[in-house]
Amino acid sequence: MGMRLDSQHLQELLNEEIPITEAMGLKVLGWEGDHLRLQLPLEPNINHANTVFGGSLYSLAVLAGWSWIHARLHKVGIQDGHLVIHDSRIAYPLPVYGKAIAVCVGPDDSVWEKFERTYRRRGLARVAVTVRVLASDGRDAVRFEGEYVLHR
Amino acid sequence: MGMRLDSQHLQELLNEEIPITEAMGLKVLGWEGDHLRLQLPLEPNINHANTVFGGSLYSLAVLAGWSWIHARLHKVGIQDGHLVIHDSRIAYPLPVYGKAIAVCVGPDDSVWEKFERTYRRRGLARVAVTVRVLASDGRDAVRFEGEYVLHR
Repeated sequence: MGMRLDSQHLQELLNEEIPITEAMGLKVLGWEGDHLRLQLPLEPNINHANTVFGGSLYSLAVLAGWSWIHARLHKVGIQDGHLVIHDSRIAYPLPVYGKAIAVCVGPDDSVWEKFERTYRRRGLARVAVTVRVLASDGRDAVRFEGEYVLHR
Repeated sequence: MGMRLDSQHLQELLNEEIPITEAMGLKVLGWEGDHLRLQLPLEPNINHANTVFGGSLYSLAVLAGWSWIHARLHKVGIQDGHLVIHDSRIAYPLPVYGKAIAVCVGPDDSVWEKFERTYRRRGLARVAVTVRVLASDGRDAVRFEGEYVLHR
């Protein structure tokens, strides 16, 4: 069992591996218990409606899910896998007028355990996670569900 | 009836209204009949697997759909509407190792006509479009379906 990845390590990892995150101003806010929060500023991601561009909100959400899974894999000592997004859905119930904050709570324990067990046995497994992006009043501005594949 | 938006106008519009498109290197390749093509270079959008980041591919696809609808609205003389993405699905059957090229063919004529008629009558309408992103061998690397809302 390893340690949990801290915010600074995750921040550096995202900026190094996916450099467009730097242009977007993506910031790892960190953990609250098992909840991981990432933030995006409005200005570099602004759109024609003066709200956060839907493509940037998607990137924020897909990275929140990816980061949560990556960190959990690190914690359980799996470091030989390649983790990629396979498919996803996103809905935008409200526009985001300022900072966007994504929250990923991860899958249920039983879902995670099946994913981890399958990967250890077969070297290939899938897991779905949900991410919410909050508007400034705390309501859901974005609902994202992504299925990720981990393979050796 | 207006003229169709040319590639240069669309390029300027996207870069001005959604500045992150400049950091991404998004390029409007132009029209072939009713097919609109947008391109993304690998380098600024690279990910941990040395392929195009899934968030950038989503942005490319959502903007191809948006641009197609925006251009068609311009052509039919509707310029008072606000066009936003409402929800979408994306699947990534293959990774993209080089340039990503998105192709949007737009909805069927009957779907478009209903959308246009509904907007003119109610000032609010929805339309779904599909976008494909091609791998270098011409196979589908990304399949995107987005529903957009146009409102006054």
